[in-house]
Amino acid sequence: MNIDAILAEMLDATTKGYPLSAAAIPISAIGAQQWNVLAGDMPLPLAVIRDSALAHNHAWMRDFTPSTGVLLAPHGKTTMAPQIFAQQLAAGAWGITVANVQQLGICARFGVRRVIMANQLLGAAEVATVIHLHETYPDLEFHFLIDSLAQLAAIEAAAAGKAMSRKLTALVELGVPGGRTGCRTFDEAMAVARAVAASKLVMLSGLECYEGLQVNGDSARDMAMVGGLMQRVKDVALACDAEKLFGGTSIILTAGGSAAFDIVARELPMRLSRPALTILRSGCYVTHDSGFYQRMLEQVKARSGAEWQTRAGLQPALEVWSRVQSRPEPGLAILTMGKRDASFDLDLPVARKRYRPGVDTTPQSVPTSWKITGMNDQHAYLSFAADDAPQVGDLVGCGISHPCTTFDKWRALFTVDDDYRVTGAIRTFF
Amino acid sequence: MNIDAILAEMLDATTKGYPLSAAAIPISAIGAQQWNVLAGDMPLPLAVIRDSALAHNHAWMRDFTPSTGVLLAPHGKTTMAPQIFAQQLAAGAWGITVANVQQLGICARFGVRRVIMANQLLGAAEVATVIHLHETYPDLEFHFLIDSLAQLAAIEAAAAGKAMSRKLTALVELGVPGGRTGCRTFDEAMAVARAVAASKLVMLSGLECYEGLQVNGDSARDMAMVGGLMQRVKDVALACDAEKLFGGTSIILTAGGSAAFDIVARELPMRLSRPALTILRSGCYVTHDSGFYQRMLEQVKARSGAEWQTRAGLQPALEVWSRVQSRPEPGLAILTMGKRDASFDLDLPVARKRYRPGVDTTPQSVPTSWKITGMNDQHAYLSFAADDAPQVGDLVGCGISHPCTTFDKWRALFTVDDDYRVTGAIRTFF
Repeated sequence: MNIDAILAEMLDATTKGYPLSAAAIPISAIGAQQWNVLAGDMPLPLAVIRDSALAHNHAWMRDFTPSTGVLLAPHGKTTMAPQIFAQQLAAGAWGITVANVQQLGICARFGVRRVIMANQLLGAAEVATVIHLHETYPDLEFHFLIDSLAQLAAIEAAAAGKAMSRKLTALVELGVPGGRTGCRTFDEAMAVARAVAASKLVMLSGLECYEGLQVNGDSARDMAMVGGLMQRVKDVALACDAEKLFGGTSIILTAGGSAAFDIVARELPMRLSRPALTILRSGCYVTHDSGFYQRMLEQVKARSGAEWQTRAGLQPALEVWSRVQSRPEPGLAILTMGKRDASFDLDLPVARKRYRPGVDTTPQSVPTSWKITGMNDQHAYLSFAADDAPQVGDLVGCGISHPCTTFDKWRALFTVDDDYRVTGAIRTFF
Repeated sequence: MNIDAILAEMLDATTKGYPLSAAAIPISAIGAQQWNVLAGDMPLPLAVIRDSALAHNHAWMRDFTPSTGVLLAPHGKTTMAPQIFAQQLAAGAWGITVANVQQLGICARFGVRRVIMANQLLGAAEVATVIHLHETYPDLEFHFLIDSLAQLAAIEAAAAGKAMSRKLTALVELGVPGGRTGCRTFDEAMAVARAVAASKLVMLSGLECYEGLQVNGDSARDMAMVGGLMQRVKDVALACDAEKLFGGTSIILTAGGSAAFDIVARELPMRLSRPALTILRSGCYVTHDSGFYQRMLEQVKARSGAEWQTRAGLQPALEVWSRVQSRPEPGLAILTMGKRDASFDLDLPVARKRYRPGVDTTPQSVPTSWKITGMNDQHAYLSFAADDAPQVGDLVGCGISHPCTTFDKWRALFTVDDDYRVTGAIRTFF
């Protein structure tokens, strides 16, 4: 990957979080500015990524995936940050997963050469762009999902007559009744797989499914549910292999979000007539969180044996800092952070750290009574017990639940060391 | 205002919604490209603003505010788009409202010279920036909110020793018990007003409150609630006026979100010892919506007399288009649009238009059975009756509820004419 263009990009105060009165500088120069969040150098609200936790999480996953014999194509939609993609690839990731062709384009531009699109390809402009990227980058390996004959027909119509030096490559998606995309039955999946295998323009490169929407943290139930889904994938894989429907020198089997990837890693690998690559697509591990994924990862650890139970787990690297702007009535403080700044779709943010300018020298743990109870566009409501009152002007650091929906609220997230000195910025492309 | 720098900015396919294989061009050149959403020139999902509806809404509010004798400082946080701010000022707006100092900086940079920050000013860097802007732009009129003595002390500490050719100007905020920010009682408001009036660094320029969080669309209740809140503002205004606490040549009284601004316009204007400017801060009127504000505006019309009941009301200008990527089981279609693309905080998007490539020549109204029932990060679930089935590949245009939380998901929103030809792009600064 080549992220030099990102590091050379100028940021200025039109970017949320950038120091209000600072001159424009390139991203590469930010670390030398000696800005400090706790010193008040950065306007609030501010999303920060703690370097130490991010590095810890990269190392955790770098070790976890080979320990189970699987590969990793982390879902890039979480961060949409090529700088983080580069770190993930450097930590051993096989490739990057994306959600649409625009995100594929970002990957290709910055040098990712193995991409899984965990979504159906459709649309004349989208198909033309994929073909264009295929031809522009002969070393680009790109797999998209297919789950209907109608989709295959639409792709073939859009691709007809275009110069193609190689076929497009598709993974048949298996879905869950009542779930999202994907063939619901063995027979539907086989019908699509046979049609792809017969296509002059598309090759069948493997199978895909996504278990994450059905995981609920009840390990016994989750193991049965995910195990059953993986068995369905394996049944289709064996049948496709027997019918010689797969093209290519290896066969991709991919599943695994961020909530139960360990079950996938244990249950999905299988032997076929040629090498089968089992690829996880977890995205949220990289910053982890303080809510939904924290709860799910407790189960991952519990299921993964002594080595992973004794080792330090994933750490929440993403925090959103804001300020107490008002304490208008007993038990209520209002923070300068809202639905534009932090995730609120799975859980509200979790107040974790307080820094009182002029009093605290380091961030303090917040009293257990502090709780974010609601958010508007630009405000959060913090409730507290009478003897635990925050003060107007206090800085409050919140953990979040669901990294994806915090990343997409920031064009740049600032990285910090453990003393909250700013070490750089991560550009997102949403 | 001067938005030339925005029009000169180059966009490319790193911006979501920009044609995937198009070269980078300046925003000013987009209208000449002959791109068309229905022709598949733009990748989906795509947020568009319909020019005709936007112009209609500008004209509606341009006429509404003078008809009631009030002024308008539309909340800029809705769009954070200086191009739209310029249109609002050209349509007669007195100034622009913002939510924080970063947003003030955007306004100042592009030439807005009257700004209300509907939030408490706090923070050393924020105070320093406001003073810097005050000194840099002698014609900048900037009013922020204050609701505590602690806040005043913090501002004075942050401003101490800085060269200031004029005082900062503040509006005392009145709040609602159980509500958000703002002094809860007459006595608290007067105590803050007296302290501001006595400050060497801050001048009392008026009063503020925000009724919008308490409005629920029950007109009888809303009129009583908002009327009561406006009376509280007027009581404090009379007392401050009698004590000569207001500085400046006029006095600002400001309230009014987008849900019940007509009540504010009728109830808040008053006579004081010097000219009292009543300023509404509605932001969502500009694109309107197909959900919460559509419901609220029915009440605004019903309360506003024959002229406004017979005239065409505000029109939904903001739409998010996506594609049917899968129809995996009876009654369920999956769209290429998710929580990253369209508001979901007040209501889910509303499917309104369908365009079937190769079949439809113009967008068709969708069957009444079509309903968005859920969204993930990058997907939406569309339910439908058996005889109303969408097809894989169909384009679906959705209205949204709550413009603010759709605008902040797009770095650029494309403007379109009534045939969905792309006429330009609106840059946002979140």
